[in-house]
Amino acid sequence: MKALVLEEKGKLSLRDFDIPGTLGPRDVRIKTHTVGICGSDVHYYTHGKIGHFVVEAPMVLGHEAAGTVIEVGAEVSHLRPGDRVCMEPGVPDPTSRAAKLGIYNVDPAVTFWATPPVHGCLTPEVIHPAAFTYKLPDNVSFAEGAMVEPFAIGMQAALRARIQPGDVAVVTGAGPIGMMVALAALAGGCARVIVADLAQPKLDIIGAYDGVETVNIRNRPLAEAVSGATGGWGADIVFECSGAAPAILSMHQLARPGGAIVLVGMPVDPVPVDIVGLQAKELRVETVFRYANVYDRAIALIASGKVDLKPLISASIPFEESIAGFDRAALARETDVKLQIVMPE
Amino acid sequence: MKALVLEEKGKLSLRDFDIPGTLGPRDVRIKTHTVGICGSDVHYYTHGKIGHFVVEAPMVLGHEAAGTVIEVGAEVSHLRPGDRVCMEPGVPDPTSRAAKLGIYNVDPAVTFWATPPVHGCLTPEVIHPAAFTYKLPDNVSFAEGAMVEPFAIGMQAALRARIQPGDVAVVTGAGPIGMMVALAALAGGCARVIVADLAQPKLDIIGAYDGVETVNIRNRPLAEAVSGATGGWGADIVFECSGAAPAILSMHQLARPGGAIVLVGMPVDPVPVDIVGLQAKELRVETVFRYANVYDRAIALIASGKVDLKPLISASIPFEESIAGFDRAALARETDVKLQIVMPE
Amino acid sequence: MKALVLEEKGKLSLRDFDIPGTLGPRDVRIKTHTVGICGSDVHYYTHGKIGHFVVEAPMVLGHEAAGTVIEVGAEVSHLRPGDRVCMEPGVPDPTSRAAKLGIYNVDPAVTFWATPPVHGCLTPEVIHPAAFTYKLPDNVSFAEGAMVEPFAIGMQAALRARIQPGDVAVVTGAGPIGMMVALAALAGGCARVIVADLAQPKLDIIGAYDGVETVNIRNRPLAEAVSGATGGWGADIVFECSGAAPAILSMHQLARPGGAIVLVGMPVDPVPVDIVGLQAKELRVETVFRYANVYDRAIALIASGKVDLKPLISASIPFEESIAGFDRAALARETDVKLQIVMPE
Amino acid sequence: MKALVLEEKGKLSLRDFDIPGTLGPRDVRIKTHTVGICGSDVHYYTHGKIGHFVVEAPMVLGHEAAGTVIEVGAEVSHLRPGDRVCMEPGVPDPTSRAAKLGIYNVDPAVTFWATPPVHGCLTPEVIHPAAFTYKLPDNVSFAEGAMVEPFAIGMQAALRARIQPGDVAVVTGAGPIGMMVALAALAGGCARVIVADLAQPKLDIIGAYDGVETVNIRNRPLAEAVSGATGGWGADIVFECSGAAPAILSMHQLARPGGAIVLVGMPVDPVPVDIVGLQAKELRVETVFRYANVYDRAIALIASGKVDLKPLISASIPFEESIAGFDRAALARETDVKLQIVMPE
Repeated sequence: MKALVLEEKGKLSLRDFDIPGTLGPRDVRIKTHTVGICGSDVHYYTHGKIGHFVVEAPMVLGHEAAGTVIEVGAEVSHLRPGDRVCMEPGVPDPTSRAAKLGIYNVDPAVTFWATPPVHGCLTPEVIHPAAFTYKLPDNVSFAEGAMVEPFAIGMQAALRARIQPGDVAVVTGAGPIGMMVALAALAGGCARVIVADLAQPKLDIIGAYDGVETVNIRNRPLAEAVSGATGGWGADIVFECSGAAPAILSMHQLARPGGAIVLVGMPVDPVPVDIVGLQAKELRVETVFRYANVYDRAIALIASGKVDLKPLISASIPFEESIAGFDRAALARETDVKLQIVMPE
Repeated sequence: MKALVLEEKGKLSLRDFDIPGTLGPRDVRIKTHTVGICGSDVHYYTHGKIGHFVVEAPMVLGHEAAGTVIEVGAEVSHLRPGDRVCMEPGVPDPTSRAAKLGIYNVDPAVTFWATPPVHGCLTPEVIHPAAFTYKLPDNVSFAEGAMVEPFAIGMQAALRARIQPGDVAVVTGAGPIGMMVALAALAGGCARVIVADLAQPKLDIIGAYDGVETVNIRNRPLAEAVSGATGGWGADIVFECSGAAPAILSMHQLARPGGAIVLVGMPVDPVPVDIVGLQAKELRVETVFRYANVYDRAIALIASGKVDLKPLISASIPFEESIAGFDRAALARETDVKLQIVMPE
Repeated sequence: MKALVLEEKGKLSLRDFDIPGTLGPRDVRIKTHTVGICGSDVHYYTHGKIGHFVVEAPMVLGHEAAGTVIEVGAEVSHLRPGDRVCMEPGVPDPTSRAAKLGIYNVDPAVTFWATPPVHGCLTPEVIHPAAFTYKLPDNVSFAEGAMVEPFAIGMQAALRARIQPGDVAVVTGAGPIGMMVALAALAGGCARVIVADLAQPKLDIIGAYDGVETVNIRNRPLAEAVSGATGGWGADIVFECSGAAPAILSMHQLARPGGAIVLVGMPVDPVPVDIVGLQAKELRVETVFRYANVYDRAIALIASGKVDLKPLISASIPFEESIAGFDRAALARETDVKLQIVMPE
Repeated sequence: MKALVLEEKGKLSLRDFDIPGTLGPRDVRIKTHTVGICGSDVHYYTHGKIGHFVVEAPMVLGHEAAGTVIEVGAEVSHLRPGDRVCMEPGVPDPTSRAAKLGIYNVDPAVTFWATPPVHGCLTPEVIHPAAFTYKLPDNVSFAEGAMVEPFAIGMQAALRARIQPGDVAVVTGAGPIGMMVALAALAGGCARVIVADLAQPKLDIIGAYDGVETVNIRNRPLAEAVSGATGGWGADIVFECSGAAPAILSMHQLARPGGAIVLVGMPVDPVPVDIVGLQAKELRVETVFRYANVYDRAIALIASGKVDLKPLISASIPFEESIAGFDRAALARETDVKLQIVMPE
């Protein structure tokens, strides 16, 4: 089968590549339909590594996928051939200590598509555990199905935040993940979300949603804007999605006494934090690592119409043009949110 | 000043009545504009008591109110004359043990408008503590402001439920409070809410909202409907708003393993509960008593447009016709949700 | 191998009985050392069923066990032959929806030792999944190891209660489980625990522990005692361990405003609950079904000396005298807490 | 009345000083008996300020106090003259937004003894709100009563941690507050607490308690010790009480996947935090600012014997020798934990 293979840093091939594996009794075989391009895919392409994950051998990219079940293992009962599905790319050891606790995302033994040395799903067929494969309702398209993975990070952030109905949230950073977080926070109970960034085109995209206010921090100090929007009280929740040191250093200023900060953005190196600033308001700080147990609820929100991710799909690119798609993604244009690759029929 | 006075069980007067009181340094004086009629007001009218609260002297009714500040005490800084406001009718001892914990609604010393022997607010002017008086944004009308109080009960139920984004909820009982709960649950993060009742007109009203599905239990067993709607898993949260014994006895059947039940409806007498049924799914059961700390967030949700309570206002009745209004409310017509009394200019 | 077999209601045999099964790659083979007799074992013996679990074929009893690993499967890394261990008797489908959430105890597919049709462990050797087998520290005896299972129910109750340091708790019912709950609550952060029962011998046993106060409800109304012990405020947490209808009907009287009730006792039939009584204090009601993720922490508390279960072991009975042991257990003497069967060397 | 007055940085007087104030209807007048010396008192003495709190006029020191009620205001019902009490030094605006939420410690309007410009209690008589004055049981001495304030910080840390019964905790930093945190964590449900410091005398003091293990980080890397003590899993909770940059930079290494870190120590300036390190285990980070609603529960734990603070009282100093006492405290000897001043009869 053909696959989009990252041969080494900076070099992609669209070539025959067989991912080893056999269909186990609790697995399903899926014909992939749509695969989103994630920033991490692009980062492996441009840098050859993320942290201590280094691409040392050719690796198939892609982990944001939807498709159709074409075969099921002997013990699979909740899926059958023909089911339209999306797939959770991280698979834990199901009886590890972390998995038994329900936090399988932090199981040290987890494997994750397109994280070296594990291959991704930018290939026409994949085998995946049925327990991490989710049926799509009829009113959720493959394109939306492939958006569940990035939206799941927003959902995880919303869950960790423990939103209370009517909360006011701030999102610092309007990249794709910041946008997902903003939409998950709104659907998840916030009355309104204030999104801040330097890039006006991004703010225009997310600002088009009901309930989202935007602040271009080139024009106005964010702390002042948040204070004004909350009568001086501060936001109930601050989702830090920029990973930028100045945002992290001042994030406590945005929160109300007793509020929460959710750290979603990932600064490469340790950054200064004003601990006394956090303490003076007795803030709770949550962190996010991928997601666990959110696919069902993400799909439910998309299916019910509470979350509309379609405006965030900037382009659909045929599989044959994958490499050009990755080159476009590597430009990180401010008007592109999500590029998706559509597999051949 | 004129007031709507419950002289005794079954007898209302619209007559001059001065509620004693002086403006303290932390109080505000409010010209009332709109006052909703609550089921409890009607129940005092028709029964003369609720539980151990007995009307033993003439009492002014009404506790769902919005109006305009006309005078502020010397120490009041966050409100000023001319502010449009709504009022939280329960006022605790602010340094009681419960109030210090933030659960001032269960402070045994709380006083509550129109709960004997405390007078209500169906009169042109009231004095109220500024700390329990909330400014209305410009885009929230007096009519909506007077809806904050009943909606606050829905908010409290949604808060106690600890909704997780994307939850599926069931509401048993589509009375005014059940409707408020359904809307608070949706705005508060549920992907969808299944509302059950016997009365089709009520189901038609609440079913007109996006995200609400209805089940007329005359036509279909609710457990079957919920199972079908959740792939056999059950609802994450069941809001029991009927107070009806059969609904309470079977409520555990509607919930998923590890789900929650929120008891909002108030059965007069003890009713049978299937405790082993609750235990077998290890359900959490929450209860609701009025509300605490929800007015801000209720107003935020109304102002942001996430919650639209206007379709639930069935009629606006001039103060002069208050008694007729109460008589209409006492009929409890299935097409009436909320009747409001509008005070003279 | 010999086993203690419940042939049918009322008839036990100590006879050769081979439990089918082979050692899988993630299993361990254990030589059993000590097995406690549980009330459920006795109930199957005397009644032939518990709820809809009916003994329809000969079944080996026993599920409270400790022993020594004698063989490990190919993929087992955290245990090896010679390890002293105790075993969690309930084994879920590890990738079920409930198990993925971390609440594997409410997985509908869970299998549990000595719950029909699954055999128990009153036999010299058993095979068990390594993931549900826990190593005992050197200072925890086999006898204590076999107490982990009943203590785990107390731990689950303590966890569900969400104890806050310094809470005051009430335990209604001083049976073996009530005692386990009291000790878990104390070790888990309560300042003191008030245990109530009708049987003075039981109260004397649990009352010998530091931090436990007892109330014999033949002599004094419990609500009065709790009010007196808490300055009129009520208990932070009420653990209902009696399953008795009168205790359940009045349990809300024991709790403080905003407190919690944990339902541990299992009344056979639905019983009346004063829902308005629960609501007036806005109580939270938790339920308990076995346990999940508590073995590690139970063992840690025993090993650290914070919990001493040895005084609750009333007798150690040789395997050869198992039937006599069950007959003694069936008497439910008020001076017996836990009887244990010791397997031959 | 005489008082211990900080005239200015570095200059203490024991002289006549009348703190202005009259007994309000909800206040009590207390004859002080014992007042502990806190690090913050000493810091004002040696530095003249803490952060933006600057001593600009003579100020009475002291905020850790116990004494006897000698007069009560007209509306006080739960206290009467002769009651032995301890006092919570921070008093909020009881109807502020934070106070209504139950988090009165982060009310911006809070006043706190011996925090400029508010006078402390190192004087024979003080007036205090009855709602923040707590009765001591007969078996709790004045000396212990004066320890409730510093122990309350440990309690707040234990509460914010949301300890689950049987957790393993690490405390980095064995100063007086680290010791209080360790004892609160143990009493609050931890199975064991590992305390780390550089100073062996401090470790010897806290290591004498059951359940406390110590690690002198001069001798052994803490991460290695914690890994060894937890079978490689990590601690459930890390209480960071050192405020030291190296400890903060590496704190995530000590925690288990899904664990929690509680930031108690207060580094003066922003310090580097390894955010990706926190995220990779999806840690929750809590912060602590003084305390709210913990005095009752702190007293309950002391009274029940679960917490013994007496070994931490290093010396009792007569009021007349207060200045010498402060000079001794300023030395910060590793064998001194808490110095207390005893007022004249």
